[in-house]
Amino acid sequence: MGRMRRLNIAVVGGGRIGIMHAQLVAQSPQAMLAGVVIRSGNRAALAQAGLYDVPLFDDMDAAMKKADAVLIATSSDAHVGLIRRAAAAGKHILCEKPVAFEAQPITALRAITDASGVIIQVGFNRRFDTDFLRLRDMLRAQVLGRLHMIHIINRDPKRPPLKFIPRSGGMFMDFNVHDFDMLTMLTGDRIAQVYAHGANLVDAEIGRLGDIDTATISIRMHSGTLASVLCSRETNCGYDQRIEVWGEKGALRVDNRLPHGVISDSAMGSLHANPLPDFIARYRDSYQRQLQEFLTAVRDNKPPSVGLREAADAVHAAQAAKQSMEENRPITVTPIASR
Amino acid sequence: MGRMRRLNIAVVGGGRIGIMHAQLVAQSPQAMLAGVVIRSGNRAALAQAGLYDVPLFDDMDAAMKKADAVLIATSSDAHVGLIRRAAAAGKHILCEKPVAFEAQPITALRAITDASGVIIQVGFNRRFDTDFLRLRDMLRAQVLGRLHMIHIINRDPKRPPLKFIPRSGGMFMDFNVHDFDMLTMLTGDRIAQVYAHGANLVDAEIGRLGDIDTATISIRMHSGTLASVLCSRETNCGYDQRIEVWGEKGALRVDNRLPHGVISDSAMGSLHANPLPDFIARYRDSYQRQLQEFLTAVRDNKPPSVGLREAADAVHAAQAAKQSMEENRPITVTPIASR
Amino acid sequence: MGRMRRLNIAVVGGGRIGIMHAQLVAQSPQAMLAGVVIRSGNRAALAQAGLYDVPLFDDMDAAMKKADAVLIATSSDAHVGLIRRAAAAGKHILCEKPVAFEAQPITALRAITDASGVIIQVGFNRRFDTDFLRLRDMLRAQVLGRLHMIHIINRDPKRPPLKFIPRSGGMFMDFNVHDFDMLTMLTGDRIAQVYAHGANLVDAEIGRLGDIDTATISIRMHSGTLASVLCSRETNCGYDQRIEVWGEKGALRVDNRLPHGVISDSAMGSLHANPLPDFIARYRDSYQRQLQEFLTAVRDNKPPSVGLREAADAVHAAQAAKQSMEENRPITVTPIASR
Amino acid sequence: MGRMRRLNIAVVGGGRIGIMHAQLVAQSPQAMLAGVVIRSGNRAALAQAGLYDVPLFDDMDAAMKKADAVLIATSSDAHVGLIRRAAAAGKHILCEKPVAFEAQPITALRAITDASGVIIQVGFNRRFDTDFLRLRDMLRAQVLGRLHMIHIINRDPKRPPLKFIPRSGGMFMDFNVHDFDMLTMLTGDRIAQVYAHGANLVDAEIGRLGDIDTATISIRMHSGTLASVLCSRETNCGYDQRIEVWGEKGALRVDNRLPHGVISDSAMGSLHANPLPDFIARYRDSYQRQLQEFLTAVRDNKPPSVGLREAADAVHAAQAAKQSMEENRPITVTPIASR
Repeated sequence: MGRMRRLNIAVVGGGRIGIMHAQLVAQSPQAMLAGVVIRSGNRAALAQAGLYDVPLFDDMDAAMKKADAVLIATSSDAHVGLIRRAAAAGKHILCEKPVAFEAQPITALRAITDASGVIIQVGFNRRFDTDFLRLRDMLRAQVLGRLHMIHIINRDPKRPPLKFIPRSGGMFMDFNVHDFDMLTMLTGDRIAQVYAHGANLVDAEIGRLGDIDTATISIRMHSGTLASVLCSRETNCGYDQRIEVWGEKGALRVDNRLPHGVISDSAMGSLHANPLPDFIARYRDSYQRQLQEFLTAVRDNKPPSVGLREAADAVHAAQAAKQSMEENRPITVTPIASR
Repeated sequence: MGRMRRLNIAVVGGGRIGIMHAQLVAQSPQAMLAGVVIRSGNRAALAQAGLYDVPLFDDMDAAMKKADAVLIATSSDAHVGLIRRAAAAGKHILCEKPVAFEAQPITALRAITDASGVIIQVGFNRRFDTDFLRLRDMLRAQVLGRLHMIHIINRDPKRPPLKFIPRSGGMFMDFNVHDFDMLTMLTGDRIAQVYAHGANLVDAEIGRLGDIDTATISIRMHSGTLASVLCSRETNCGYDQRIEVWGEKGALRVDNRLPHGVISDSAMGSLHANPLPDFIARYRDSYQRQLQEFLTAVRDNKPPSVGLREAADAVHAAQAAKQSMEENRPITVTPIASR
Repeated sequence: MGRMRRLNIAVVGGGRIGIMHAQLVAQSPQAMLAGVVIRSGNRAALAQAGLYDVPLFDDMDAAMKKADAVLIATSSDAHVGLIRRAAAAGKHILCEKPVAFEAQPITALRAITDASGVIIQVGFNRRFDTDFLRLRDMLRAQVLGRLHMIHIINRDPKRPPLKFIPRSGGMFMDFNVHDFDMLTMLTGDRIAQVYAHGANLVDAEIGRLGDIDTATISIRMHSGTLASVLCSRETNCGYDQRIEVWGEKGALRVDNRLPHGVISDSAMGSLHANPLPDFIARYRDSYQRQLQEFLTAVRDNKPPSVGLREAADAVHAAQAAKQSMEENRPITVTPIASR
Repeated sequence: MGRMRRLNIAVVGGGRIGIMHAQLVAQSPQAMLAGVVIRSGNRAALAQAGLYDVPLFDDMDAAMKKADAVLIATSSDAHVGLIRRAAAAGKHILCEKPVAFEAQPITALRAITDASGVIIQVGFNRRFDTDFLRLRDMLRAQVLGRLHMIHIINRDPKRPPLKFIPRSGGMFMDFNVHDFDMLTMLTGDRIAQVYAHGANLVDAEIGRLGDIDTATISIRMHSGTLASVLCSRETNCGYDQRIEVWGEKGALRVDNRLPHGVISDSAMGSLHANPLPDFIARYRDSYQRQLQEFLTAVRDNKPPSVGLREAADAVHAAQAAKQSMEENRPITVTPIASR
């Protein structure tokens, strides 16, 4: 690969994910970190993350003056507004998921970004995990023949901070939106029906804030393949991220990745490592690969593999899951009209 | 344990399961195989299974004259009638699951067997698997604290013969009845709601016979714990029998048992054994332990741990699963009145 | 397989291994337990093992009057004398390993047993383990191409009772004799040179009795293939029995067998079962298969796959290991003259 | 950690390892790549590795003018001379292993580098692998109590190019020198005796060049703990790097790291990934951590954890292994006088 001019990227949002993105931009040989839009209270965390001499901004507008592109990693409820402003300013956009809590505004954004000519990519980072890519490629190569079942386990190691809950969109929107997107990405198929059963078992405070922390989601794909998502906000034993696909010729499984390979044998048994501790440890490489795709899309002026259309699909399914839970019945996921 | 008089047991049914039971009875130091009620066409299979000089009968009545107890392993639709006849003859009964395809007739049998004073045990053999017993004991000991999720994978290696389908009661009744029983046995909890989604993906002939071969079942227990059962009639890569339980302190998992421990490393990868090939290989020991419980129950004249009440519960849930699938909505599983 | 007359077998020796053999004979449909030659002090253990109404003898001569064959499971130093007496009485013989502590007397026994016409099989039970047989068959099928290395880990869970040490022949003779035999059985090759380094690290009392409890054994086979045996008398975490074979095309590994498949995940890590607790749990099936081979050899009047010749080879290598340790130099293992 | 002035490092040697080191220096926020001393024929590889605009030198003297330190990654037989020149020029030194093929010249270098005041670190990169560090820390914490056995498997995926063999020092010196160092690093113990058996089984050409490609090494440590190293130049199924330590309370095992977590189940079995493909994939992180230690040692002007003394120890053991093989007898490893 030849060299290209470094793309100046401003990271918007200085929370845990924003700082991780800022690190990745700073380390990329093809990008420059034009600055971070961050609240003054979070700035110490930047230095702790090894980010010195980074221009800091209170507002995205100031940052955009120095940047070719913005990487939006604020709380989700701010995404739509920021995308509008960035598109208006002609800046390329890499925006964290979910773009919005409903499919309609995402569809509306498509018209705006199409008109502006900017590249917009949505941060479904798991699409760039090498294990999931390997799985997808094997499925495309028909290793399993006809697919019977896709089975996703998606479990966080620790419940999120309570202050995060009210602006998260709820667990289906914030967390399982990854799973809905993964089902589509892995199979090329579309979600046809969702039945979701949520419960509040981990922390009663989460329930008091109107959210759930544990769920089973039973899905039918358009092709007839079944799918299941089992989800929890807290394992207390590592970040549990597994996918199995069963088909007529056998199965493919993506097992957890471990932080170390030391096994301790004692009278008690044989003790292996828990899975990696959190999403940053598990998916750092996929975030890096996601950034690389964005840089390439901008350089080549081509749409990235995951944009607003895919974002709308995933959010549409998350909405259906929420409705299913609230009405305790399966919900048909109708195709989005604008396709 | 001291010695006891051997119990004379007649095995009713000469199919694959009946012959396995006859072997186990013949090998037990505490039982005698009084005979096998078997169609003439199946008799060669007995000798192939190493069972020589076994008295053969065309009808259970003749066999019962020689026996203290009957082990009923016919097709499921004959169970209720045979239990009635055995109870009337004062014979103890070990009957394969499911006892019937509806809960009501099972409840009705309870009055009959209670009145007759015979011991009746129902063949939920998985309850006697040492791994599942270990899991149950750990759950009882509160190793996990509050339970969040029980997750069962129940997959057959090969689709059953088509002739078996029409008299099986359907996949939920024939196959998943084990899973419904296991949820109760492991937790001491009861099933409160079932949503089942079935599909016909393995073999279109199964569909033409009105049955399914693939399913997701989403369950809520009375305590609020969620459960999931994923099921298939054909893996093509061994008998896949896994259970995971997640709770506030971590998780317990029962992994598949392998037929051998040879690993083959080559340029292609590291090839491990598939799971055991079928239910007889996987559960032979639990069938043996089940028989032992029956012998002890008869000897001590005490009810076994799994009788008609537990059978009715499991069948009740299987009925609800079928109704849920047919009506595409979750079904509340109401308590059985006669309890 | 058709039925054959049951062979009357007297078990000689009432220790732990003798009782296990008596159980296996009693359970075999093709054998009858003619009695057990046992010290009066050990007789309670027979009943505890479920062996009732078994004829008990103080001496092998009395037992042989009731038997077609003897199964010798006394302490090793008595084996040669008992074999001579049994052969003189015309009884078939299944004798535990090692037959003697030197190769010469074993060779001498060959003339005697050949002349008497009795079948004699030596108890290298590991030859009948299905995992090792699978490994052997794959090696014979040239799965690995040219062999580079055979690597055996042979570790006992707990040091033996001290009273056992003085009559055991020493660790190489008592324990590693299995490994020397296995190298030959797996490859069809012969041991050419042995360098053994022993140490007394587990229990100083074992050292005071003149034995070792830990060893590395470095071996060259006649073909040039290298081999390594790592050995310990005490793991404190289960019975560790692994074999790896490396060759030009890859590797084959036999991993430990586990007593259960329950995995416990907690903040501490993921706890798996230790290997099976002892040799009886690990090799019970191979002892049973060994008995079956003996019964078949007697029935067909054909030599079993493992007789005095193989026993002499293994003992010859164990002697070389002991000499190597004592002289701290590699010892060439010369072919046994009488072959 | 605060920021420090970047250290200018010239990498000497433009082979595969030299280029990897150059990448790591270029990526370090605390170092600057002052240049690479590289033969003109290898320069294309630098650009392929993403290293552009790097000053290139024909000779170390020119490079040293621009550098504070040199990282020596030439063929091993050039190491001593380059270290002398760098020390004379007052440059800090990070030198690949082995420093020399005999202990004596390494000991002689100590006087020179001590006098010059430069920091010298030797490239035993495995010391910086997080799994091995975890193992060492657990051993230091007495998790196992008394140590019985250390068991290292060290196997390359593919034989080295034949042109590499003559200048490598031989397999014990080039490859197993890591294992000898690891035994010391893990235990804090010293090697007392070595018996090595080498063979030429992988490639006859390697034998014709006077080297071996397969070996067993049987070791006694000063404390009495035994050790075993099993080694091969070619697995054909990944880079096999395992260590087990056995002690009175159990065992610790470092298992291989896998390149991916996808498991493929089919009728053939369950196919897992082979270990990582080569030493760069397996140890890239440890090379990075090694560089970090060097940078810190220079900054703080303190000796690194692994210098010429440790290098002499490991080379001393490798010499003993070679002598053992040539004379087919165990060799006592006497302490190095100058300590």
